[in-house]
Amino acid sequence: MSTASSLPIVRTIGDLRQLVAGWRKEGHVVAMVPTMGALHAGHATLITAAAEGGARVVTSVFVNPTQFAANEDFGTYPRDEAGDVARIAPAGGHAVFAPGVAEMYPEGFATAISVGGPAEGLESDYRPHFFRGVATVVAKLLLSCLPDRALFGEKDYQQLLVIRRMVTDLGIPTEIIGHPTIREADGLAMSSRNAYLSPAERAVAPKLHQVLAEAAEAIRGQVPPAEALIAGNRTLDAAGFKVDYLELRNARTLAPVADTGAEPLRLLVAARLGKTRLIDNLAV
Amino acid sequence: MSTASSLPIVRTIGDLRQLVAGWRKEGHVVAMVPTMGALHAGHATLITAAAEGGARVVTSVFVNPTQFAANEDFGTYPRDEAGDVARIAPAGGHAVFAPGVAEMYPEGFATAISVGGPAEGLESDYRPHFFRGVATVVAKLLLSCLPDRALFGEKDYQQLLVIRRMVTDLGIPTEIIGHPTIREADGLAMSSRNAYLSPAERAVAPKLHQVLAEAAEAIRGQVPPAEALIAGNRTLDAAGFKVDYLELRNARTLAPVADTGAEPLRLLVAARLGKTRLIDNLAV
Repeated sequence: MSTASSLPIVRTIGDLRQLVAGWRKEGHVVAMVPTMGALHAGHATLITAAAEGGARVVTSVFVNPTQFAANEDFGTYPRDEAGDVARIAPAGGHAVFAPGVAEMYPEGFATAISVGGPAEGLESDYRPHFFRGVATVVAKLLLSCLPDRALFGEKDYQQLLVIRRMVTDLGIPTEIIGHPTIREADGLAMSSRNAYLSPAERAVAPKLHQVLAEAAEAIRGQVPPAEALIAGNRTLDAAGFKVDYLELRNARTLAPVADTGAEPLRLLVAARLGKTRLIDNLAV
Repeated sequence: MSTASSLPIVRTIGDLRQLVAGWRKEGHVVAMVPTMGALHAGHATLITAAAEGGARVVTSVFVNPTQFAANEDFGTYPRDEAGDVARIAPAGGHAVFAPGVAEMYPEGFATAISVGGPAEGLESDYRPHFFRGVATVVAKLLLSCLPDRALFGEKDYQQLLVIRRMVTDLGIPTEIIGHPTIREADGLAMSSRNAYLSPAERAVAPKLHQVLAEAAEAIRGQVPPAEALIAGNRTLDAAGFKVDYLELRNARTLAPVADTGAEPLRLLVAARLGKTRLIDNLAV
């Protein structure tokens, strides 16, 4: 275990368990914030929320290779451990779990967790490997720490529902808490991948949130969802996005909506701007 | 929670956690013996071994539907909860976890754990659904109890290695302990499915173990493995078995053997006798 500005950084599951066992002995509640690093103000908010009520907070920093396809950005995903560590302590975090790939995927590793239900469609249509990688690594992170609660941002809304489904189904003894998306002043959802955007793309990017907000407003105002979604697609096309999907779904199951009046609703969007793929979502 | 002959029987994960939390508070080590019920002397031995050193032992009794294919014996698998409970206390067990199907697979259940490596081939060639069902339910049983150790019989040797692989890979904080197969006086490995055998089949069934013992002896005596296996197959055919497989594998990985002199070796067999499918295995 090493420390930077007095924040313990643990690299192995054994060391993490020892650290957490010490906290447990002292009677602390333990919370976890799993991340891929490249921390921004959204992550900081999660860490601060996790620490509420005096919990000890582990922030994990692990860029998980198994959730990237060969053509995706695993190699270029932003990595800045020193910068991440510097953000964690001020946010109220108590330790960093930053394992190497060999610690998470030791020789002979052969296990995968697949989730159906909320994992079907949307992201899975475009990243078929994604949720399998996410579910497996999140299970291992949670089981390595066994926190009382773990916090995830609603920016990755489908991911949040998939993790909640898995944790319920397998009986992982951790409460999964979703935290509202943190946005830039112009509405763009904070994301580590925003760093990929050129200045011109960055100027256009907030359209994604605007379109969601306009579609939500229209649907609330009794505009037929199909009509609102067509208008949203048109706006995004015109702004230079290539839309993967813009859909209205049941907010709890992500199933297609049968009765807009009777179900909790969520709009979800994924679109590419140049080489950058952005996602966002909004309650209706 | 109900009790029979003073043995607590818990039906829900919540009640199990409460029971285990109480034991933890008292400083007890906790052990688990997952079973599908229809307990025999082999299970009793596992329970007794689990209790060694003063551990509190949970025996789970759950006939897991997801590890049976449609054409298999889920419907007819022997069920006798009262008989099981009567065997557990004398063996040294402290509680029974006997959940219903809806407790293990609540509405919307959508998660599955798949294992490669040791799960490939052998049983998977004949029961392709099997280890996925086993891995998922064992993970949930372990996570519902979080025992320090869990015991499994070596009779299901491939299953033992698959569970060990999964537990290592996911970081489930439980030590997996294999226990030597318990046999009838004539060598037949104890199994709940032995109850399916007609008297004539029961008389022939010990051949399975005899063939393994002879093949192991031959291989130790430098008979080429292929030759020993052909002889074993012939003996089983002649005795009326339909052999699914009789194979020599690396005892740690279950990979095909490259160098019989340098690897730990295990013989594994599966064969059908009438409508009953029997498996067994032996160290060389």
